[in-house]
Amino acid sequence: MDSSDSRHKVEVCFSPYLFSLYKEEFEIIVVIDVLRATSAICTAFHNGIKELIPVSTIEEAREYQKKGYLVGAERQGRVVDGFDFGNSPYHYMKEELKDQTLVLSTTNGTRSINIAKEAGQVVIGSLSNLDVLKHWLERQNKNILCLCSGWQNKFNLEDTICAGAILDHLLATGNYRSEEDASIAAKYLFLSAKDNILGYLKASSHRRRLKNLNLNEDIKYCLTPNTAPVIPILQGDRLVEINSLVESE
Amino acid sequence: MDSSDSRHKVEVCFSPYLFSLYKEEFEIIVVIDVLRATSAICTAFHNGIKELIPVSTIEEAREYQKKGYLVGAERQGRVVDGFDFGNSPYHYMKEELKDQTLVLSTTNGTRSINIAKEAGQVVIGSLSNLDVLKHWLERQNKNILCLCSGWQNKFNLEDTICAGAILDHLLATGNYRSEEDASIAAKYLFLSAKDNILGYLKASSHRRRLKNLNLNEDIKYCLTPNTAPVIPILQGDRLVEINSLVESE
Repeated sequence: MDSSDSRHKVEVCFSPYLFSLYKEEFEIIVVIDVLRATSAICTAFHNGIKELIPVSTIEEAREYQKKGYLVGAERQGRVVDGFDFGNSPYHYMKEELKDQTLVLSTTNGTRSINIAKEAGQVVIGSLSNLDVLKHWLERQNKNILCLCSGWQNKFNLEDTICAGAILDHLLATGNYRSEEDASIAAKYLFLSAKDNILGYLKASSHRRRLKNLNLNEDIKYCLTPNTAPVIPILQGDRLVEINSLVESE
Repeated sequence: MDSSDSRHKVEVCFSPYLFSLYKEEFEIIVVIDVLRATSAICTAFHNGIKELIPVSTIEEAREYQKKGYLVGAERQGRVVDGFDFGNSPYHYMKEELKDQTLVLSTTNGTRSINIAKEAGQVVIGSLSNLDVLKHWLERQNKNILCLCSGWQNKFNLEDTICAGAILDHLLATGNYRSEEDASIAAKYLFLSAKDNILGYLKASSHRRRLKNLNLNEDIKYCLTPNTAPVIPILQGDRLVEINSLVESE
């Protein structure tokens, strides 16, 4: 509120649907889709893929398939017919994906990436890469928006808690500030969840939805912090691991 | 999730901007704008006004003014030039308003009413009428959506906490269920706020905004539960107090 305040902003947007209310003011957009797209993407890079092209539609995914790419597509929690993988992190742990270029389209996550890229530098956030990401963000000194992918444009708890964790860390450095109530709420929700994220999210609608699809192992993996300590960052139309751009910081 | 579940739904929508994702499924829409439109509306009815016509635009408000109505209009927290009152509850405590018809246009609240009325029966919610409203809702056995007006389409804490209080009560009856993560979050936020709502909202952006306008007394009034135990309900184009429709329930 103080115009002489030189700290950078960090805020949370609960849904891609609300993104147009925010996008003018931010230099870095952290796209979050904990269950499961951004967790899967971090896992893929941690397991050595070269790059990943996120596409919004199934049609685009099929075009890449025709060109011979390895292409994944997921809708409503399931692998789309005719594609080799979806957004289970376990799909991305295979040795044969090392050094490959993948293409991926998911219900919420890859669409968020493509919305966000018009507004600022996109980086990928999840609980899987939480600590390495928050320490990297801390050093950027830029205005940061955490964009929760949600579920079909609605708010979801797991993305919000991940965003709240990032925000809580950045505010604690003293170099960042938040003004929006959504950011305050995300921080409150993270603070009540942090000692038992899996238990806290027991009631989550999206978690229940995936549990119905027998994806319990995926859920446990995605809600466990720091299993894939990498930072995927968007360069042009594709994600690369940040250390492939800059050898050391 | 269980299709044999006969309980009615109660959910929370964080913003009018997200309303199109919800509106098909609900019979009662509780419109909430704690700071300050719905608190002011409850206060007006508690102080004996006959009816209140909510209008979305300043132009509509001026049309009613030309016809000789008592008209209030507020934008960005201030009374609009040329109108007699805004949305401070204190404007509605005057003796001369008794039995009158008022017209009101506010930044967020009256627009929410006009969005919601296409989807179901609109009732007015605030902390001012919290207990009487939640007990009335409990007896309806219908699907209920709490629509938070937010601030310029963004999430706000005070509306969410009010919605969470309603939801917490209805779920505790055993006759209602919630499926959405937004509803779960609203309940969590209410439970952490309930012992000290004013303190909890200290950091709220909207509260800070109003404080800058020297509206501290308004804030304290609006965040104090049960000061105006009435239920304004929309009939056609105007709000009336529910007991003027039904003498006894």
